[in-house]
Amino acid sequence: MNEVRVAALVGSLREDSLNRKLYNAAVKLAPPNMVITEVQGWGSWPIFNADALQDDGFPQAVKQAAHDIDSADAILIVSPEYNYSVPGGLKNAIDWLSRVQPSVFASKAAAVMGASMGPVGTARMQYHLRQMLVFLDAHPVNKPEVMLGRANEAFDDNGELTNEVTATLVGQLLVSLETHAARFAA
Amino acid sequence: MNEVRVAALVGSLREDSLNRKLYNAAVKLAPPNMVITEVQGWGSWPIFNADALQDDGFPQAVKQAAHDIDSADAILIVSPEYNYSVPGGLKNAIDWLSRVQPSVFASKAAAVMGASMGPVGTARMQYHLRQMLVFLDAHPVNKPEVMLGRANEAFDDNGELTNEVTATLVGQLLVSLETHAARFAA
Amino acid sequence: MNEVRVAALVGSLREDSLNRKLYNAAVKLAPPNMVITEVQGWGSWPIFNADALQDDGFPQAVKQAAHDIDSADAILIVSPEYNYSVPGGLKNAIDWLSRVQPSVFASKAAAVMGASMGPVGTARMQYHLRQMLVFLDAHPVNKPEVMLGRANEAFDDNGELTNEVTATLVGQLLVSLETHAARFAA
Amino acid sequence: MNEVRVAALVGSLREDSLNRKLYNAAVKLAPPNMVITEVQGWGSWPIFNADALQDDGFPQAVKQAAHDIDSADAILIVSPEYNYSVPGGLKNAIDWLSRVQPSVFASKAAAVMGASMGPVGTARMQYHLRQMLVFLDAHPVNKPEVMLGRANEAFDDNGELTNEVTATLVGQLLVSLETHAARFAA
Repeated sequence: MNEVRVAALVGSLREDSLNRKLYNAAVKLAPPNMVITEVQGWGSWPIFNADALQDDGFPQAVKQAAHDIDSADAILIVSPEYNYSVPGGLKNAIDWLSRVQPSVFASKAAAVMGASMGPVGTARMQYHLRQMLVFLDAHPVNKPEVMLGRANEAFDDNGELTNEVTATLVGQLLVSLETHAARFAA
Repeated sequence: MNEVRVAALVGSLREDSLNRKLYNAAVKLAPPNMVITEVQGWGSWPIFNADALQDDGFPQAVKQAAHDIDSADAILIVSPEYNYSVPGGLKNAIDWLSRVQPSVFASKAAAVMGASMGPVGTARMQYHLRQMLVFLDAHPVNKPEVMLGRANEAFDDNGELTNEVTATLVGQLLVSLETHAARFAA
Repeated sequence: MNEVRVAALVGSLREDSLNRKLYNAAVKLAPPNMVITEVQGWGSWPIFNADALQDDGFPQAVKQAAHDIDSADAILIVSPEYNYSVPGGLKNAIDWLSRVQPSVFASKAAAVMGASMGPVGTARMQYHLRQMLVFLDAHPVNKPEVMLGRANEAFDDNGELTNEVTATLVGQLLVSLETHAARFAA
Repeated sequence: MNEVRVAALVGSLREDSLNRKLYNAAVKLAPPNMVITEVQGWGSWPIFNADALQDDGFPQAVKQAAHDIDSADAILIVSPEYNYSVPGGLKNAIDWLSRVQPSVFASKAAAVMGASMGPVGTARMQYHLRQMLVFLDAHPVNKPEVMLGRANEAFDDNGELTNEVTATLVGQLLVSLETHAARFAA
């Protein structure tokens, strides 16, 4: 079985973030041949400005992140919901990355998951993100959807995912992502 | 007739932005008793990080912007569409501002408009923004919707709005905003 | 205090529907001066066809329902979520009613609620419905949002709402609807 | 090259419908090995009622339509936008069809297009439909998006599509659908 390389974006910068814990769980629950690597650093990127892009080109960090996504076989996005949508910081990262040509998102399989304190489990964020993925021409897995509500009850004091239903769903989502990636491999 | 003070957010940082031109047109087309003031500077704000907020509190610039919105009677948002949604920078500003308590958006009337090169005229951005406004508890005007497609044909070399249909719609939207603001005045 | 007449649409035709139970609870939890009346019968309406409308005019049942909504001060929609959106039958009713001129929805305050077996509590349906209300020029209450997940646990054997948190939210939503209706009264 | 059988749903019942004309154009513009067949008759289906389904089972017409979709390799949906969303009649058809088990939509490639008189070209309908397709587990083509605005100018007196840009896009979408269907073939 071939290695499947997954580039991941985690939408929260908070150290003790529920979504970081969910991401950490995903790394452990991934199929044996899947290697998930986080694309980090977008918390320090400037706010996107098309004038700055024209004058100065892409920041080095954006180029590196774009390269890392481009080299991957698939994309994983794990994010909280802010104001019923995608966090501005994550969106800013997507806005920068989307300008790199040729597109690093195009024709890639993708998976989306998220955790929230409330019951809705980032559903509103996820459908906004799916709409963005249409433009980016990425192909998100449909099922299972991982929308972890009341997420503060799902992890233990060490930050380990103890909710078994969610653990099973995360594992299934990553298997689906692997299958999906094979469909979109060149 | 009382003065209506409107705090505006313009979602593009580009100097020659079509949305800045549309905003400039709105300022000129406003009813005589409406004063529109832009909330600037969010292009330099850091990416939102809840840890930084907890450790260091709000940046001074966020506090000032929150105060300016809080002092206004209504909100105007003029924005491009990036990746089929709200620009990350504008969303990041909203994420910061939404954390200020008590909410500076709550119970305020709002109006949304946008310009794009393509035919859809930022419709996708506007409905995402409207969903955010539910959480923020602001009340957007329903009609008219100003979705200026093929916007590069709508302004002259001096950046003046020459498309009369759009000019009429912008004027109507601002009159609607004034009416709407009166509904939500304490 | 003036009487507030509310015209309600319930999006499920099932006799033992969770959303009917939620609607029944709303009727009981309404403020004393609020009278909620259901607009019934759309389960028998034909599928909307603009040719039929042109040839035969509105069915009598549509005219009656439009009149009932037009006479009301506000609108309440209580609905399940089908296929991540508004039930086709309820949407078909809206499609018919939206053609009556002058619009019976325009400038009316509205409230939305829904119940589902799953955890998301009809959130996806509600945001689709809110987008429709922009076109219809109705003004939905922002808060509280009543998205009753795991709704099968919220009612007793007699169909009475026993979940107190939800009962409180429903009551608050109807008070908000009353306040909102006053804003949009002529 | 294998035959690709496409089951189509056309969301308008109007005889002179712009979307029917767009559908007719699609049939002509399809790749030579693609056979598009319309699933008709949903204009006469009852409004979905889970009690009726439980008591009487599926109407014969629903069973036939479900069989036709199940037998196809891919799905094409061509629809107007009503009230900023999917027409109620088409949604009612989807609500019925979605109850047939095993799902006739699951793992199928899909393409969406639409025509409108206004400039937005059914964009709002299409993103609502895409959200439904997540639940249905169908896989819509991302690009090109066919959102034909000002559609009354795009057809001649015989109902033939004369807008060449749109004709090219429709052809490309169907080629993309063929490619996409191959990805999801068993």
